[in-house]
Amino acid sequence: MRRRYFSDRHLLVVGLVVCALPILLAADEGMWTFDNPPLKQLKERYGFVPTQAWLDHLRLASVRFNDGGSGSFVSADGLVLTNHHVARGQLQKVSSATANYAANGFFARTRAQEIKCPDLEINQLVSMENVTARVHGAVRPGASDSDALEARRGEIARIEKESLDKTGLRSDVVPLYQGGEYWLYRYKKYTDIRVVFAPEEQAAFFGGDPDNFTYPRYDLDFAIFRVYENGAPVKPGHFLKWNTHGAADDELVFVSGHPGSTDRQDTVAQLEYARDMQLPTVLTFLKGRLETLRAYAKTGPEAARQSADLVFGLENALKSYQGEYAGLLDRNVMGKKEAEERELRSLVAANPEWKTKYGPAWDAIAEAMRRSASTYKARYYAAIGRSQADLPAVALTIVLYVAEVAKPDAERMPGFHESQLESLRFSLFSPAPVYPEMDRALLASWLAEGLSALGPDDPYIKTVLGGRPAADVAREAIGGTRIGDPAVRKALVEGGSKAVDGSLDPLILLARKVEPLVREHQKWVETNVEGPLQSAGEKIGQARFAVYGKAVSPDATFTLRLSYGTVRGYKMNGTVAPPRTTLFGLYDRSFSFGQKPPFNLPDRFLKRRSLVDPTTPVNFVSTADIVGGNSGSPVVNRSGELIGLIFDGNIESLVGSYVYNEENNRAVAVHTAFISEALRKLYDATALADELERPVMAVPARR
Amino acid sequence: MRRRYFSDRHLLVVGLVVCALPILLAADEGMWTFDNPPLKQLKERYGFVPTQAWLDHLRLASVRFNDGGSGSFVSADGLVLTNHHVARGQLQKVSSATANYAANGFFARTRAQEIKCPDLEINQLVSMENVTARVHGAVRPGASDSDALEARRGEIARIEKESLDKTGLRSDVVPLYQGGEYWLYRYKKYTDIRVVFAPEEQAAFFGGDPDNFTYPRYDLDFAIFRVYENGAPVKPGHFLKWNTHGAADDELVFVSGHPGSTDRQDTVAQLEYARDMQLPTVLTFLKGRLETLRAYAKTGPEAARQSADLVFGLENALKSYQGEYAGLLDRNVMGKKEAEERELRSLVAANPEWKTKYGPAWDAIAEAMRRSASTYKARYYAAIGRSQADLPAVALTIVLYVAEVAKPDAERMPGFHESQLESLRFSLFSPAPVYPEMDRALLASWLAEGLSALGPDDPYIKTVLGGRPAADVAREAIGGTRIGDPAVRKALVEGGSKAVDGSLDPLILLARKVEPLVREHQKWVETNVEGPLQSAGEKIGQARFAVYGKAVSPDATFTLRLSYGTVRGYKMNGTVAPPRTTLFGLYDRSFSFGQKPPFNLPDRFLKRRSLVDPTTPVNFVSTADIVGGNSGSPVVNRSGELIGLIFDGNIESLVGSYVYNEENNRAVAVHTAFISEALRKLYDATALADELERPVMAVPARR
Repeated sequence: MRRRYFSDRHLLVVGLVVCALPILLAADEGMWTFDNPPLKQLKERYGFVPTQAWLDHLRLASVRFNDGGSGSFVSADGLVLTNHHVARGQLQKVSSATANYAANGFFARTRAQEIKCPDLEINQLVSMENVTARVHGAVRPGASDSDALEARRGEIARIEKESLDKTGLRSDVVPLYQGGEYWLYRYKKYTDIRVVFAPEEQAAFFGGDPDNFTYPRYDLDFAIFRVYENGAPVKPGHFLKWNTHGAADDELVFVSGHPGSTDRQDTVAQLEYARDMQLPTVLTFLKGRLETLRAYAKTGPEAARQSADLVFGLENALKSYQGEYAGLLDRNVMGKKEAEERELRSLVAANPEWKTKYGPAWDAIAEAMRRSASTYKARYYAAIGRSQADLPAVALTIVLYVAEVAKPDAERMPGFHESQLESLRFSLFSPAPVYPEMDRALLASWLAEGLSALGPDDPYIKTVLGGRPAADVAREAIGGTRIGDPAVRKALVEGGSKAVDGSLDPLILLARKVEPLVREHQKWVETNVEGPLQSAGEKIGQARFAVYGKAVSPDATFTLRLSYGTVRGYKMNGTVAPPRTTLFGLYDRSFSFGQKPPFNLPDRFLKRRSLVDPTTPVNFVSTADIVGGNSGSPVVNRSGELIGLIFDGNIESLVGSYVYNEENNRAVAVHTAFISEALRKLYDATALADELERPVMAVPARR
Repeated sequence: MRRRYFSDRHLLVVGLVVCALPILLAADEGMWTFDNPPLKQLKERYGFVPTQAWLDHLRLASVRFNDGGSGSFVSADGLVLTNHHVARGQLQKVSSATANYAANGFFARTRAQEIKCPDLEINQLVSMENVTARVHGAVRPGASDSDALEARRGEIARIEKESLDKTGLRSDVVPLYQGGEYWLYRYKKYTDIRVVFAPEEQAAFFGGDPDNFTYPRYDLDFAIFRVYENGAPVKPGHFLKWNTHGAADDELVFVSGHPGSTDRQDTVAQLEYARDMQLPTVLTFLKGRLETLRAYAKTGPEAARQSADLVFGLENALKSYQGEYAGLLDRNVMGKKEAEERELRSLVAANPEWKTKYGPAWDAIAEAMRRSASTYKARYYAAIGRSQADLPAVALTIVLYVAEVAKPDAERMPGFHESQLESLRFSLFSPAPVYPEMDRALLASWLAEGLSALGPDDPYIKTVLGGRPAADVAREAIGGTRIGDPAVRKALVEGGSKAVDGSLDPLILLARKVEPLVREHQKWVETNVEGPLQSAGEKIGQARFAVYGKAVSPDATFTLRLSYGTVRGYKMNGTVAPPRTTLFGLYDRSFSFGQKPPFNLPDRFLKRRSLVDPTTPVNFVSTADIVGGNSGSPVVNRSGELIGLIFDGNIESLVGSYVYNEENNRAVAVHTAFISEALRKLYDATALADELERPVMAVPARR
């Protein structure tokens, strides 16, 4: 399953990543910004020319789930469709020891029964504006890398703040093409989102971790929310028309969603760094977190319930990163990246002006990666938020928050700019339940892992443990804290530095001990890694514009993109995978394993077997280029009608972070016919199905 | 699908192949002779000790299909079960332009409707006798390699002839453990075999070439014959009890069948020869034959029908050899073989006596392979029988036959010994239809490929083409021949050298032109390759006995073997494959591909969909160690009851020619429940199902 859950590898390089554009664009490759849609490719390959109205309609019907996924408006009364696994975090948060909606599903038969999510924000991209000149212009010629970084950051904060003040819209400046361009994206923000429908996890995630990131597949991975504004369902100006007929083989389809991040334009030095330093560390980290959580889950059913969502997310991340890691270990993949880089560098070297201007950038990046590697592990384990425990992360955020907001906007740490504060506070004061016992276990083992990785003499270890056992430190900090209460958090934030400095809350005290080191690492990385990477990356981005033009889409940035492709099977494991699967296949896979978990089915699927049409298409694949973060993206046809719901990529697509291979890279989607059939025949949710399928006017598709 | 169709690579080394036994025996590895069953492994791993009666019962219920597969007696009235794809050749032979049983299936509702096969011989192994001392003793100490080969061959011919004269049974001396042992196998021979039932090819081979050699799978790959003797159904002393309950997950099962050949004990030099010389040549050859046949098939529906069986077999062989080739290109596989060889050689070198006796054998083999490579292509293309055209092969056999039978038995070419003549004549005088136009196309392109590979100055090319176009030579030889008529063949054979030498039949004339070269190649190979390989192989076989004992099964020789394992899924392409599939899955795969060929279903499967139980198990996998030739083998449980029918191995098993990997090597079988369900609900074959399922006494399973 695709979900932008742990963008952990990217914590290092907070702002930009540096890259070189691929030489040859595979036919259906690309995650295109809506300001630069692939009109030429669509026309040449498919004879399709979308109108601006078609593009605007699709963009405005698309939404971003800020906790890591995509979705779309699908009814006139504000219904939003996404994946169960995107909704899963909120389902967990609205569940309790007596009502486990994440596992058992949920269905509001009336609007009154719809449950408000505690801290879900969704965004709709309402405008895009090119601000490259302003950001680039803020850097004085001859500025050092870190001065340049600071100048860009200050200018970005100003642009965002001005826009927020002027429009009241969430305003994010997004670096694209490795800083070759900067765009101001304005979002309509929704924060009153209510759960309408979710199937049982066993239907949504049938096949569990084994089937995750694979195909053929048989998952009912959808959930439905309703967006409210001012206490009433919103009437979205744009929503997608529901089409249960799906796509024919080889039919052109589109995906509009929010791919999280890709590294297709990284230099070879960056890929080697990912392969040799980052990914092995991340994989160890994920395994450690899973071990802790599994041990915790064994302590009882409520512990198992509490940890389920995090376990799901970590397993998902583990399988995904293992696939990426395997990709980087594959000589063919690395060979292709090396060849691309050789070509670009030799073309740059052949032009004296380019050679002087862009030529040194690759070595500068390699040098930055070498520097980064020298402190990587120390910084990695010192990030206390990485423990996956909620409360320590919240405590550290509070400590940083009160200090940062006292500074001028342009000088703050990333994440604390004026335009970001509203969303940050929404999440920080969330009334969602906290699980202190789970947090304690996670913090204790994270500290112990840090001790083991860094040794007792490491400054962070000395500071945080002071020679005491990790379990004791964790027990004391979590056991004694009161910040599980949102009111306490609010009081601290509103009390500012005075309140925080005076707090005797043991977790706040721990966070304050860690704070100087966090700032020191942040500063070190900006000066030694991020600054040089931004400057060199911008040069390589410009070199690519100079050499190849703008015919390639930028690396993913968890902002809205348009992908396209066709519904098509592929060669797999000696045979061919079909373009779609059917309900027959869901039952086959369950009975083939004797209905043992994770191949068991919810009771209703067995009891109502004779009511459903077994030929109903369940999931289907297309060549559309997607990655994690695209989960929940609508799949639409040429008429802009909704025919499917992205929920995964196949195992062959995991290398897609680095290279797209049209031969076997496939996006996996839930077929709308399966959702309709399930709502009507399995869940008796007729009114909901009717609301989704209500006829609407189509948008003009072609010029 | 597994079928011993083209043992082409082994044409070079007619008698023995040379090898070293693997160091570590993977747990369920082994194709065991019935004289040396894996009692220790079964007891230690599964706590199962089969009785001698249990073993004898299974052996005597098993049969070999001499055109390349396995089978078993399954009723008191002589019913024999095998695969559709084993029966396919005979189904083709009993079909005609107006009745295509191979494609459309066949069902004899009465015994009178059963159709006699034109040239099917099946064998039942009735006794085994160790004759190693006699064969080894026939070689005088100090004899040259080729004298030794001749001496062994002479002795083997004598043993076979004596046994035939004494018992009237088919008597074959089988070299095992690379000549470390020789065994006299005596077979009861059946030649009146009648077709009772075959489903449509589209049910038996659902998924076609793409799904071939893969799993999950959904094939009804079975056919039923009845064995007659003296005009009445035979009453076999042993037949297997039909059990439709199948095996539970991880249940112990057994396979009794005839694996064709393996190379697990080849030296590294032999594997390199296979990788660099044999397999690339064979793959080119198979592609050339397929190209010719596909072009021929396009000339009309009757041509398509005629060529269908051969196309099937060639595609099957191509996919199988491609898998083997990929295995040899895999550094892990070759690395494992190198490590095994290093260990054995170092253990041999550490013992002065062994070092002298066995040490030089590896270099001798490497030298033999180098010599063989020097003439490989010339010999390969000069084998006119390899064209896959029937008539040229028949003509050459007739020409050789009359010359060979005039010699003393011990001096004849392999294949023409007294004990082999009855089976040879049965096949040579077969009334099965011949397809001259297809043969013409096959011969013409084979000659053209030979010209292109060897050049116009090659002696064989000069002899056979004499500067004329290949198409002309083929048209003249096939167009003018009368040996399509079995009576003409019989008259030539019975007329002896005089009749053959006097024949003006153009194909006989062509065969006579080729004959001297065939003999020359045969002699050259015996002296330069086969003789040294036999001598050195025997030494390595003895070295392994000395070092490791006899705890490893010998390489496969298309003789009866016992394999064992458990019913178990495996990790596959990022997820897990189930232990079995169901009828749900068959329908899923068909509808997933929109019922397009090769995923279309026979009409009855669609019309009667509501009559069958979709949870019926269809195919299942086990860890039992099998290879091509095992097709049609019975799968039995601890009680010796028939629960399945081997028909394939998964794609991961193709490397099994060289190494067995219990992790993912799986034998794929048709579940007996699927056969019963299909016979009763889809084919209205109630009486046949009743005959199969009739209760019988069980054999005692344990001591």
